[in-house]
Amino acid sequence: MTYQLHYWPTIQGRGEFVRLALEEAGAAYVDVARGDEADGGGEQALMADMPEHDRPPFAPPYLVDGDLVIGQTANILLHLGLRHALAPRDEGGRLWVNQLQLTIADLVAETHDVHHPVGMGLYYEDQKQEAARRAEEFRTRRMKKYLGWFETVLARAQPKAGNGGGWLTGETLTYADLSLFQVVEGLRYAFPRAMARLEPGLGRVIAVRDAVAQRPNIAAYLASDRRIPFSTEGIFRHYPELDPE
Amino acid sequence: MTYQLHYWPTIQGRGEFVRLALEEAGAAYVDVARGDEADGGGEQALMADMPEHDRPPFAPPYLVDGDLVIGQTANILLHLGLRHALAPRDEGGRLWVNQLQLTIADLVAETHDVHHPVGMGLYYEDQKQEAARRAEEFRTRRMKKYLGWFETVLARAQPKAGNGGGWLTGETLTYADLSLFQVVEGLRYAFPRAMARLEPGLGRVIAVRDAVAQRPNIAAYLASDRRIPFSTEGIFRHYPELDPE
Repeated sequence: MTYQLHYWPTIQGRGEFVRLALEEAGAAYVDVARGDEADGGGEQALMADMPEHDRPPFAPPYLVDGDLVIGQTANILLHLGLRHALAPRDEGGRLWVNQLQLTIADLVAETHDVHHPVGMGLYYEDQKQEAARRAEEFRTRRMKKYLGWFETVLARAQPKAGNGGGWLTGETLTYADLSLFQVVEGLRYAFPRAMARLEPGLGRVIAVRDAVAQRPNIAAYLASDRRIPFSTEGIFRHYPELDPE
Repeated sequence: MTYQLHYWPTIQGRGEFVRLALEEAGAAYVDVARGDEADGGGEQALMADMPEHDRPPFAPPYLVDGDLVIGQTANILLHLGLRHALAPRDEGGRLWVNQLQLTIADLVAETHDVHHPVGMGLYYEDQKQEAARRAEEFRTRRMKKYLGWFETVLARAQPKAGNGGGWLTGETLTYADLSLFQVVEGLRYAFPRAMARLEPGLGRVIAVRDAVAQRPNIAAYLASDRRIPFSTEGIFRHYPELDPE
């Protein structure tokens, strides 16, 4: 059965976390809004479809899986994790991976707020001063706190993995590892100088990033035109003035 | 078995969504940090305990349930919902309630950002100008969009409920209804003027708020000293200058 992913067609955004899980799983899916308008593609069709569901999503992304219409990125991944063995089977493991993903969601929201501190209805250009203030704290404290936490999580998971492993939960890849890859890629794009300062202390995090990039399905995806480039329209945005020396 | 809830002892904050679920369920729990320091209470003990776990939470609240240490508010509620029949049994229903809760979490995060638009490490007094800008969009657009969405969700759920119901999923109370109560209470405290303008269009949302307040366990909780008052230390803060006529 083919999933329908509904998300903004021109950015990675939050939809990218779902795309990575679908790609790793080798799942059949249509990225609906990226299709032709004749096939229901385009932003207008997305905004027209979303509120019509009995259980209407509040915002993209949402995934249609048969009768299920599932919104909220972490919730979609909770579902896909179970379906495609991208999460542990046991209750404690599933909750832990969901917790990791929700912490990534918090980091992603803070990353967005750096360039939109006073209003998502305004352009960045209308809030540059406020963004500069917010970016300073983000670069010097929040990035370090979040990424350092993932480094700690990896350090504690690895002894349990026995011979190797190195994923967030030990021996087995989960969707949270895919999301951590995306966060590293996004932060490298948006804050290359800040990341260059932090990376020497993030060996395990970067090893996860590298191992995800080498997964065959992910490598093929990243090399395809299905992977939309980062840009200053998405969540991770590179404004040099927000990432000084 | 007695749950341990770990959260800041002097505010409602995100912990309140967990407290409401525990109270409605009549579950035995200890609000650890609110206890005496001799019993491991207090903020210092909280901050000392948190990073020691094999699966360390990133931030409070977290719940200890036997061997499980569960962080992230929506994740804790996912667990409690299953344990205490505060969520549907079927897969689609569980995902939908999780989706509702994650949308509430987004609203709560935006509410927090109103008074901390440029940095959570700074005091409100150091970002009052930026807060005034952000508050305007929040009052005039975001509150309306979120609460209007819940009103739509309730309108679509009610025909399915047959004879009555009126909860977010129809006939049966879930933890998302408890959280919607908390959001209405919080927004009434923080933005009384903005809420007074919106409430005439929110009949179903306010009916959920009223119905939750009348649940026997919730009513007893709200009348007890376990319910911490709202204040300008929490997430929902009343600053009159952010809620003009």
